[in-house]
Amino acid sequence: MARINDNYLKLKAGYLFPEISRRVKAFAEANPDAPIIKLGIGDVTEPLPEACRTAIIEATKEMGDRSTFKGYGPEQGYLWLREKIATQDFQARGCDIDASEIFISDGSKCDCGNILDIFGKDNKIAVTDPVYPVYVDTNVMAGNTGEINEKGEYEGLVYLPISAENNFTAEIPTEKVDLIYLCFPNNPTGATATKEHLQAWVNYAKEHQSIILFDAAYEAFISDPSLPHSIYEIEGAKDCAIEFRSFSKNAGFTGTRCALTVVPKNLTGKASDGSDVEIWKLWNRRQSTKFNGVSYVVQRGAEAVYSEAGVQQTKALISFYLENAKIICEKLTSAGIQVYGGTNAPYVWVKTPFNLSSWDFFDKLLQTTYVVGTPGSGFGAAGEGYFRISAFNTRENVNEAMKRITENFQA
Amino acid sequence: MARINDNYLKLKAGYLFPEISRRVKAFAEANPDAPIIKLGIGDVTEPLPEACRTAIIEATKEMGDRSTFKGYGPEQGYLWLREKIATQDFQARGCDIDASEIFISDGSKCDCGNILDIFGKDNKIAVTDPVYPVYVDTNVMAGNTGEINEKGEYEGLVYLPISAENNFTAEIPTEKVDLIYLCFPNNPTGATATKEHLQAWVNYAKEHQSIILFDAAYEAFISDPSLPHSIYEIEGAKDCAIEFRSFSKNAGFTGTRCALTVVPKNLTGKASDGSDVEIWKLWNRRQSTKFNGVSYVVQRGAEAVYSEAGVQQTKALISFYLENAKIICEKLTSAGIQVYGGTNAPYVWVKTPFNLSSWDFFDKLLQTTYVVGTPGSGFGAAGEGYFRISAFNTRENVNEAMKRITENFQA
Repeated sequence: MARINDNYLKLKAGYLFPEISRRVKAFAEANPDAPIIKLGIGDVTEPLPEACRTAIIEATKEMGDRSTFKGYGPEQGYLWLREKIATQDFQARGCDIDASEIFISDGSKCDCGNILDIFGKDNKIAVTDPVYPVYVDTNVMAGNTGEINEKGEYEGLVYLPISAENNFTAEIPTEKVDLIYLCFPNNPTGATATKEHLQAWVNYAKEHQSIILFDAAYEAFISDPSLPHSIYEIEGAKDCAIEFRSFSKNAGFTGTRCALTVVPKNLTGKASDGSDVEIWKLWNRRQSTKFNGVSYVVQRGAEAVYSEAGVQQTKALISFYLENAKIICEKLTSAGIQVYGGTNAPYVWVKTPFNLSSWDFFDKLLQTTYVVGTPGSGFGAAGEGYFRISAFNTRENVNEAMKRITENFQA
Repeated sequence: MARINDNYLKLKAGYLFPEISRRVKAFAEANPDAPIIKLGIGDVTEPLPEACRTAIIEATKEMGDRSTFKGYGPEQGYLWLREKIATQDFQARGCDIDASEIFISDGSKCDCGNILDIFGKDNKIAVTDPVYPVYVDTNVMAGNTGEINEKGEYEGLVYLPISAENNFTAEIPTEKVDLIYLCFPNNPTGATATKEHLQAWVNYAKEHQSIILFDAAYEAFISDPSLPHSIYEIEGAKDCAIEFRSFSKNAGFTGTRCALTVVPKNLTGKASDGSDVEIWKLWNRRQSTKFNGVSYVVQRGAEAVYSEAGVQQTKALISFYLENAKIICEKLTSAGIQVYGGTNAPYVWVKTPFNLSSWDFFDKLLQTTYVVGTPGSGFGAAGEGYFRISAFNTRENVNEAMKRITENFQA
């Protein structure tokens, strides 16, 4: 009798994005002529950079000749890609990260979930609230939580609220936690972390032999030169942190799929006999056994991000989306709506006007302006009363959406 | 204090393929002029079919225009690909499989490992011996086994020997098992399963409410028309089987990465309260949460396998490798060496001559003929005294390797 993993049954049935889809679909069916603009899901809209496309096409041509054909590649990714990442993303910013510490994957979402494979079941886990739902759901699936309560919080997890009240910082917990998910620039709030803030986290982690799972998927959007792009810019982080990065948002790879995870060689965790075990070896074994590397042609596309043309083209993409974010912030502010984020991140975190709940504002916005955003409460209890607007869209759509909102929502 | 998953520490240190690499490297360094031919790892060597390359290039061009750019795709894969698979791989062979039951992934190795996420920890698991090591190692990692014994067997797993003594069939166990891994055409033995044999397994699984994890990665190599390509050709299999397939070996996608897993809608497993839970829903939730779909351009490449040109080109690839296998079988037989497999599979399973152990034959073959194969004992205790030779290579290399072996090993 095949037994299932009962932990899956603890998961909330109504996941955020399917519920949004359901409501938008119902509205569109009832109002077939309404010109809906989606600023909900964080998906890019602009073309894949020319440098990346050229590289993918060249690599595909190589696959047509036996002498340049590529079969299985290294599960960790090709060294030519890992070396460019090590040099340009890390060493150039003073981070002592070697190519051998970089693992190429097909997505940060995958890595954020899969990383739990190598950790034990008795860790105390902290997440921010609001939070990227994947951190929570994968812990539920892995059996690291209890049941969900009426507030939507899972028993056993430590929630660290980030809201206007604490200036959107993830406060160091008073209790001891073993694994900590941090995401800066933050999804969904668009908040950032200063070096001092991350240093406090690193100090905490080192003191408690905890590990920080640092999601830097949005680092490319940092425009303030004082802000760190990587956790490894912080003294001591190599002893206590894993970092996730992605080509999805800087180079428009959401549909092309390439990401990376950094696992420093000197990072250790505890076995149940109290001995120290190298995390790198565990992740390397996990990836070698359960993964077969990213498509060769896609890795060549990612490599092109580091070429002179690629650097310029991805910078232009980032600037484009940041300009969208700026327009969103300005227009909403001019309408009397309070906004956060949006200057070092592609997300604008809106305080819902008229004290509306997140879902009430969602419905009102959809019905009166045909604009779709994401209810903040979908990211956690502390997101109630907030609303996420994504800067990932065409300029025309952003301008039109803001025009409609300012005309309808003078708060 | 971050705790690691102690189960990883149970894994054998010397995994098969790294050990082969180590010995080959040492030999090559000591004999720099030796023209080594590798018939070890099951990696393809022939160019990616032209139809697939053209489709990937066209899709990459689409990514350059905002109106045809693709961001996040469905985590389950694009429907246009899933529908072609359903029609041409399954319905055309009389299997009642719908597109919605097909999940596109980046590799069968990944799916074979990840599938354990959705099953409980108290299942009795059966594998064949010899076996594709990933089935075993992923169960060790997931905590489904005890320690390893001196024979290289993990406590708690049920090993089903397949060897010349039982005509290479996986015999139905006398004890009750809950999950059963079957791979036909078999890696590493090249053995096949008749409809009657699989029917017996399906009957067993239905009687015991077990689930068969059927790996059909090599189905395209079946040339005997009486043999089933899919477990779903067997009456009742939709109630008790998951099937894994891949584009790696039929269309040369080992470096391009695309595969698929079939989870029938009516397949159920037991929750701990005794209720039936749909496996499809669990896998769909797993993939939606921990995976983000396969690269759009790669899915377009896989779709081209089903075009008229793609069908012809993949058939030609298969024929080419099968002809290699035939040459290997004939030459080794003429040298008095006993061979199995190789007619409906790209692997020839060799009985080592002179009663050599698998590793002794490996060393002797390398030293006297510079040919690399895979020691059968690396796939499990019952593989001792056998040796796997892969048909994945150029014709020139296969001919040259066979010439050297027949000249040196008249058994």
